Amino acid sequence: AKSYNITLLPGDGIGPEVISVAKNVLNLAASTQGIEFKFNEMPMGGAALDLTGVPLPEETLTAAKQSDAVLLGAIGGYKWDKNEKHLKPETGLLQLREGLKVFANLRPATVLPQLVDASTLKKEVAEGVDLMVVRELTGGIYFGKPRGFGTDENGEEIGFNTEVYAAYEIDRIARIAFETARKRSGKLCSVDKANVLEASMLWRKRVIAISEEYPDVELSHMYVDNAAMQLVRNPKQFDTIVTNNIFGDILSDEASMITGSIGMLPSASLGASGPGLFEPIHGSAPDIAGQDKANPLATILSAAMLLKYGLGEVKAAERIELAVLDALNRGFRTGDIYSPGNILVGCKEMGEQVLKSL
Amino acid sequence: AKSYNITLLPGDGIGPEVISVAKNVLNLAASTQGIEFKFNEMPMGGAALDLTGVPLPEETLTAAKQSDAVLLGAIGGYKWDKNEKHLKPETGLLQLREGLKVFANLRPATVLPQLVDASTLKKEVAEGVDLMVVRELTGGIYFGKPRGFGTDENGEEIGFNTEVYAAYEIDRIARIAFETARKRSGKLCSVDKANVLEASMLWRKRVIAISEEYPDVELSHMYVDNAAMQLVRNPKQFDTIVTNNIFGDILSDEASMITGSIGMLPSASLGASGPGLFEPIHGSAPDIAGQDKANPLATILSAAMLLKYGLGEVKAAERIELAVLDALNRGFRTGDIYSPGNILVGCKEMGEQVLKSL
Ligand SMILES: CC(C)[C@H](C(=O)O)[C@@H](O)C(=O)O
Ligand SMILES: CC(C)[C@H](C(=O)O)[C@@H](O)C(=O)O
Repeated sequence: AKSYNITLLPGDGIGPEVISVAKNVLNLAASTQGIEFKFNEMPMGGAALDLTGVPLPEETLTAAKQSDAVLLGAIGGYKWDKNEKHLKPETGLLQLREGLKVFANLRPATVLPQLVDASTLKKEVAEGVDLMVVRELTGGIYFGKPRGFGTDENGEEIGFNTEVYAAYEIDRIARIAFETARKRSGKLCSVDKANVLEASMLWRKRVIAISEEYPDVELSHMYVDNAAMQLVRNPKQFDTIVTNNIFGDILSDEASMITGSIGMLPSASLGASGPGLFEPIHGSAPDIAGQDKANPLATILSAAMLLKYGLGEVKAAERIELAVLDALNRGFRTGDIYSPGNILVGCKEMGEQVLKSL
Repeated sequence: AKSYNITLLPGDGIGPEVISVAKNVLNLAASTQGIEFKFNEMPMGGAALDLTGVPLPEETLTAAKQSDAVLLGAIGGYKWDKNEKHLKPETGLLQLREGLKVFANLRPATVLPQLVDASTLKKEVAEGVDLMVVRELTGGIYFGKPRGFGTDENGEEIGFNTEVYAAYEIDRIARIAFETARKRSGKLCSVDKANVLEASMLWRKRVIAISEEYPDVELSHMYVDNAAMQLVRNPKQFDTIVTNNIFGDILSDEASMITGSIGMLPSASLGASGPGLFEPIHGSAPDIAGQDKANPLATILSAAMLLKYGLGEVKAAERIELAVLDALNRGFRTGDIYSPGNILVGCKEMGEQVLKSL
C-alpha cells in the first residue's frame, strides 16, 4: 500500500473542528483506494503563539517541509489582532508560504447548481459560474523589500512597501496559469495595472512572452479595477484568471463571495517541488468556533485538492468531490448555506454525511 | 452676477459628447441662479497626444490651475494603448491630479429606485445602496518612488513600485473622510491591509489618531480582501469608505458596478485649495464614441458636484440633481440603463430632456 505523510495544521477558531472532520474523510477515501496516511498534527498561527511564542515554530515548518502535503484549517482571531507584526498569526501563514516556496495559489470559485440561491447575484448571473483564480503567492508587495517605517525629508513619519516582480517569478506563475487554463476551457485572463505600475508592465510583457509556449490558450488582459467590476457584472466571462499576490488576494475573495458560499471553497498552493499547502479560503470565524456550526466542506474539498494536485491521487480526489455533492443532494446543509427545505446540520454531522456518501 | 471660469477637458472617445451636453446643462442651471460661466476648452489625453505630442500640455495644466473648477470627460483609447508610459493618456490624467494637488477623490455609488433592476445583484441586496468611497488620489503606489525597471542580484529583469504614505497624507484624507461621514450617516469604514503591509499599519494608526477629532463618527476597519467580499455580500452595510489610492481604484469600481449603472456615477477630486477636478467615473468607451449613444448623466452629475463641492453653489447643484431624477422619472433612458417600458434616447436627447426638466 502507498503511504503518505500529511502535516495537519488545525490552527485557530473553527480550524481544529474542520480539520478533524477532513482527516476522517481523507482516511476513508484513502482506505478505499489502497492508500495509507500518516498524520502529523502541528501548532500554527495563534495556537502556536500561545504555546511557543511564535506563529510558525521551526518544528512546524520542518515537519511541513518533510511531509508529502500540508492541510491547514484556519488562523487568526481577535485575541492576537493587536500583536506586533512578527507576532501576528498572519505572519506565520506568510512564513509558511515562503518556507514551502508555494508560489502558485489556485482558488476555484464555482457556483454549484444546488447552491445558486446562496449568491447575492441574480440567478441568471450567478448560475454556471466556474472560474479559477491563479494567484502569485510568494512575491510582490507581500514580500518586497525595502519595507518598513521611517521619516521623509521633512521629518514626517512614513510607512512603505515595495511591489516588485522578477521576470522568473512571473514566468513560472504564468506557466502554471496557462497549464491550468489549457486543462479547463482554454481561456486565460491576466489581470494587472499596466497603465500605471512598472511592476505590472513587466508582468504583462512576461505573460505575453510565455503565451508563445501556449498557442492553444486564448490570452486576454484586464486592468484590476475593471476586473473587480466585471466579476460583478458578468462573472461567467471568466475561466482562468492569473494575477499578482495583492490583486489575487482581493479578486479571489470577491470571486468567492460571488458564489455566495465561501464555506464551500478550497484552495491549493503549489511550488516547483516539495509539498503543497491546502486550505479552505474562509477564515477562522472566531464567533462560531467550538460550537459545531462550521461548514467543513471547504476543508474536505481542500483535502480533495491535496489528493489531486499534491499527491496525484486523482481517483480518491474525485470520490471525495462526488461524496460532497451527494451529501448536498441528499439535502444536508450547515447554517451558512442553509435554505428552507433542507436539513440543517452541524460540522460533525456534515462530516458524517460525507463519510456515508463515500 | 457671479462669474466662474471653468476649464473643460473633453478628452477622448465619448468625452466630447458628454462634455458638450454637460456644458449646456451648466449654462442653464447657472442662468436660473444668476451665475455666469466662462468656459475654456483645452486638449487632454489622447486628443492632446495627437495634437501636441504629450498627454497633458503645459497650457492645459496652467489653464486648469487658473480656473475655478475643471470638468473632464474621459480619456484613453485603443490607439494609444501601446504607447510608452510617458505617452499614455492615463499618464496625463495622473499628471493633472498631481498638478492640481487633488488628493481627495469622492466617488458616490448610489442605487436609484428607478434603476434598481440594472444591478446584477438581487433587488433586496441592491436596493437602497448609498455609499461614498473617499479615495486618496495623489499618493501611494501610483506616485511612490523608487519605481521603474532594473535587474536583481542574479541579473534577472525586475519591475518595481513603492507603496508609501506619509502621516500628513493620511491625516488630510482621513479628515475629509470623517467630514464626509459626518454629513452622511456618521459611519466611516477605513479599508487597508494592515495585517501585511507597513504602509497600511501607518494608515490605520493615523486614521485612529484623527478619529479623536470626530467622536461623533463611528469608525471601523476592514481588510481590503474582506471589503471586496462585503461589497458583494451586503453593500448596504457601508456608508462612507476611506482607503488608499490603489485599493480605492479597485473598490470604487467594484462599488460602482454594484449599482449596475456606471453611466450614472460622478466623481469629485479636491485639494486643500485651488480648483477641483470633476469627472464621470466611466471611461472613454471608444466602441460607441461619436454615435450619440453615450449616457451623459454621469457627466451632468459631475457638473452638479462641481457646483456643490467646487464652487459652493449648492442650490444650482440640487437643481441639476433633481432635473436628472425628473428626466428618469419621465422614462428617458440611454442604452446602458434601458429596460423595456422606458423611452430609449441618445446622448443629445437625454441632455435635452434634462434641460427641459431644469
Ligand atoms: C491572512 C492573510 C495574510 C492572507 C493573505 O492576505 O494572503 C489571506 O487573506 C489569504 O488570502 O489567504
Ligand atoms: C485611468 C487610470 C489611470 C485611473 C486610475 O487608476 O486612477 C482610473 O482607473 C480611475 O480610477 O480614475
